[in-house]
Amino acid sequence: MAPSVTVYEVGPRDGLQNEAASVPTAEKLALVRALADAGVRRIEATSFVSPRWIPQLADAGELVRALPRLPGVSFVVLVPNAKGLERLSECLDVAGERRADVEAAVVISASEQHNRKNLNRTVEETLRELEGLVPAARAAGLRVRGYVSTVFGCPYEGRIAPERPAAIAAQLVALGCAQVSLGDTIGVATPGDTRRVLERILEDVPADRLALHMHDTHGTALANVLVGLEAGIDTFDASIGGLGGCPYAPGASGNLATEDLVYMLHGMGYETGIDLGKLVAAGALAQRIVGRRLPGKTLQAELAKGA
Amino acid sequence: MAPSVTVYEVGPRDGLQNEAASVPTAEKLALVRALADAGVRRIEATSFVSPRWIPQLADAGELVRALPRLPGVSFVVLVPNAKGLERLSECLDVAGERRADVEAAVVISASEQHNRKNLNRTVEETLRELEGLVPAARAAGLRVRGYVSTVFGCPYEGRIAPERPAAIAAQLVALGCAQVSLGDTIGVATPGDTRRVLERILEDVPADRLALHMHDTHGTALANVLVGLEAGIDTFDASIGGLGGCPYAPGASGNLATEDLVYMLHGMGYETGIDLGKLVAAGALAQRIVGRRLPGKTLQAELAKGA
Repeated sequence: MAPSVTVYEVGPRDGLQNEAASVPTAEKLALVRALADAGVRRIEATSFVSPRWIPQLADAGELVRALPRLPGVSFVVLVPNAKGLERLSECLDVAGERRADVEAAVVISASEQHNRKNLNRTVEETLRELEGLVPAARAAGLRVRGYVSTVFGCPYEGRIAPERPAAIAAQLVALGCAQVSLGDTIGVATPGDTRRVLERILEDVPADRLALHMHDTHGTALANVLVGLEAGIDTFDASIGGLGGCPYAPGASGNLATEDLVYMLHGMGYETGIDLGKLVAAGALAQRIVGRRLPGKTLQAELAKGA
Repeated sequence: MAPSVTVYEVGPRDGLQNEAASVPTAEKLALVRALADAGVRRIEATSFVSPRWIPQLADAGELVRALPRLPGVSFVVLVPNAKGLERLSECLDVAGERRADVEAAVVISASEQHNRKNLNRTVEETLRELEGLVPAARAAGLRVRGYVSTVFGCPYEGRIAPERPAAIAAQLVALGCAQVSLGDTIGVATPGDTRRVLERILEDVPADRLALHMHDTHGTALANVLVGLEAGIDTFDASIGGLGGCPYAPGASGNLATEDLVYMLHGMGYETGIDLGKLVAAGALAQRIVGRRLPGKTLQAELAKGA
């Protein structure tokens, strides 16, 4: 049997939140359906962040209530704080029953400066908040994913000592996070970094609790995924078409494109459950929705072949 | 001392020959100078192919005569046949002296169909031609590089049995090629393929005679480079900015971008002799010359940071 890898799709949340224009809820739902139709089984749908900060996701409540129920598909929703968790919870009770196909995700940075700019508090303050938030989400019946940002480098502090993300990831697991996603938020990692940082983190957290969230800002995302596979990681984050860009350098690439990840995984004999042709169709839909050419290379190659 | 890797630049030849419009010779020379100024030490400058086939390189003679003499820098010129070798030779004798900083390169495909479409003869016929051409080039005082195209896949035949490129590469070395570059002409390889094919070829040709020429059509080029580094390969081909595109799927990516390769190599502690900032400047020049945004990710990230 071929080894299996989980492709975790972040486009509808992490991708669309970085798009200049807000996308109508119906189009977000069409994208979510297209991704699920292609076989993607975990889709990060939106975030209950304040619309003051990210107006693109102001429709989070409406979107969550309208998420389709699809066998085998789970949706993940970012909850930055207790208020966000409350808003999410309200959307999950339908006709007296709590839907079980939605998970929560929480965020923290490995670097002090990025955490302050992103969350307006220190890493220590965020950890104390998560000490309440993660158990509360679990008590609400939700599986929780933890994100650690700037694991491999920070736009303000540069390189980060691997002890920091290792300690934070271990604390997230201790708090009850089912999975911790390690983010190369600015896409600076090269394979030597990834190997070194993963080795350190794996001393404290087992591989089956980790995911890698690599950005392709310098074209190294898939080389880093290769290192992650060799280290035993089996979940990788990606964004359809490479949707989202890099908030720290407008015009640069951000998220790894889902089609490129799936192309490489299939080429290496990994099972993902995804139909690459249908995934390319979802990428074409994403392009139509945002009205621009997306950076995904496999997407462009497949569309060029079809043209 | 840090391990050293040679970055072999193909932009002025392999890149510009795939651009729709011909670039003035003076601009090609400015690009060559910018690349050398950034520290690139091997630059493929042009090809003595018939202008009927590739009008973009019709100025090959003029260009070769005008190539600057720069300490430590060598230029490579493609010679498809005896006529091309003769034309190249004529350009190298200056004031009764033969310049020693120019090498020749010859081309053959691993797949029958691609060789027929590209060179208008069978692989066997091309091999017989090279049996004359490579020794003739050496007799003319030229170092010779051999290219094997479609090593990992052919646009007409699909996957290629690794025995074929292994046999051809071994023959090229036996004929006197100092280096054989293994091309993923349509950018289909994933790391498992690269490892498998390299293992087979390394049975017949030592790593220090090989180079990898990976295309980034599916975003996997740097992951494949990583496999090549692990297999002991120390020369990698790339094109400034990712210049060139994919002739088999217009709109898709082709050559690996030199800046992305150098970014990864430096991040992994390899010495290349290249100044990445100056290389980005050469990439910006390449963009101005062709009048469009190039796909290189590090190029776009660096230009976005500067903007």
